[in-house]
Amino acid sequence: MVSKNQIKLITSLQQKKYRIANKLFFAEGVKGIQELLESNFELEHLYSTAYDFEEISADRKSIVTENDLKKISALATPNSCVAVFKIPTEKPILETDLIVALDSIRDPGNLGTILRLCDWFGITQVLCSKETVDVYNPKVVQATMGSIARVNVNYVDLKEFLLKTKLPIFGTFMDGDNIYKSALPQHGLIVMGNEANGISAELENLVKNRLTIPRYGNLQKTESLNVATATAIVLSEFRRG
Amino acid sequence: MVSKNQIKLITSLQQKKYRIANKLFFAEGVKGIQELLESNFELEHLYSTAYDFEEISADRKSIVTENDLKKISALATPNSCVAVFKIPTEKPILETDLIVALDSIRDPGNLGTILRLCDWFGITQVLCSKETVDVYNPKVVQATMGSIARVNVNYVDLKEFLLKTKLPIFGTFMDGDNIYKSALPQHGLIVMGNEANGISAELENLVKNRLTIPRYGNLQKTESLNVATATAIVLSEFRRG
Repeated sequence: MVSKNQIKLITSLQQKKYRIANKLFFAEGVKGIQELLESNFELEHLYSTAYDFEEISADRKSIVTENDLKKISALATPNSCVAVFKIPTEKPILETDLIVALDSIRDPGNLGTILRLCDWFGITQVLCSKETVDVYNPKVVQATMGSIARVNVNYVDLKEFLLKTKLPIFGTFMDGDNIYKSALPQHGLIVMGNEANGISAELENLVKNRLTIPRYGNLQKTESLNVATATAIVLSEFRRG
Repeated sequence: MVSKNQIKLITSLQQKKYRIANKLFFAEGVKGIQELLESNFELEHLYSTAYDFEEISADRKSIVTENDLKKISALATPNSCVAVFKIPTEKPILETDLIVALDSIRDPGNLGTILRLCDWFGITQVLCSKETVDVYNPKVVQATMGSIARVNVNYVDLKEFLLKTKLPIFGTFMDGDNIYKSALPQHGLIVMGNEANGISAELENLVKNRLTIPRYGNLQKTESLNVATATAIVLSEFRRG
């Protein structure tokens, strides 16, 4: 059973202002929820149609009908469970060897996919410009497939950070060096730009290492790659050795 | 001005059965529409709020209000134009050197992104299993960003095709050979599997060249990559030389 107030609260968490006001976000699906539980995310409450999370005490979980689940889910086809978690306080930035910095990524699916990629390639620190979509947006949480629990995300003034970092700074441009022929170090900061405009003019001068993913052949008119697929290729190149 | 019947027709084209019945699909946005126009797609009618396609004769275009555009668009934030095109008859399969075969890709965004990637990497032939999402789904058309005009897509019985092709067949699995250390030819057929289940049991035996994209480090628990990002890495590896 889900009360009207609970439905109102959970659906409100689809909007950033209510996530901030309540310091809560929600995740859907057994796997993603389990990974958050295992990673010190503090559960507020779990709503499940069937799956019994034995590790959760009875006062923190409710069995609900599929109809109730539909009312609180953000998905067209809801999973079997929705869990509300507390938004943790931002952890300090990890001084890792390889950092991904996102310059105004707007699409939640792209951000989620990039976090999943970072997790795959062992990158534990992602920096987002303040204009980047909120990591606790339910579509981001969904697209990370649990990786949100393992990648540290901080929202920062990217220009300020790039000005002070000692890491070499990389980014992709149409006129950069062929990434396949560039020596790529195992430490560095990789800037990925906005879906429509790429890396912003404000940051471009700070990106000293300009890379390009070569387009194959000359006949194609494709002007760009999706930012998540471009990130996949760049991270693969940095890690392939 | 858009008539009620036109609104009814165009919105019906969001569903496959009405696309088939009417042999029509629609695209949104100036750039994507222009690329379809330049690529022999036959325009039925264009609805635009502002942008004047000079190359289109007056009887094939209408200036509409933003409110009208909202009624026919499939997007939450409509572009400035919607164009209805005839679905062309399927062209014969191109006997190219490198073919991508999709085994039950269900998500329209993934199919669109993969076609955009194929276009970037100069792959002009994509084969889809009959279970793969329809290429004329508006979300697919949107995600291709115009690449749908340059990549030949055929829906086939994939098993039958794999049984008769002379191309070496590649696919990614959790237990395959490290793709970074494999010699990859410039001809071959690359099978990419379903979002949840990977390559189907029915096809697996036919994929003689089993590849893996290595996960970096051992601590990560990420179980998989999104199929579009995996395709990005695989195509990059085949083309990087």
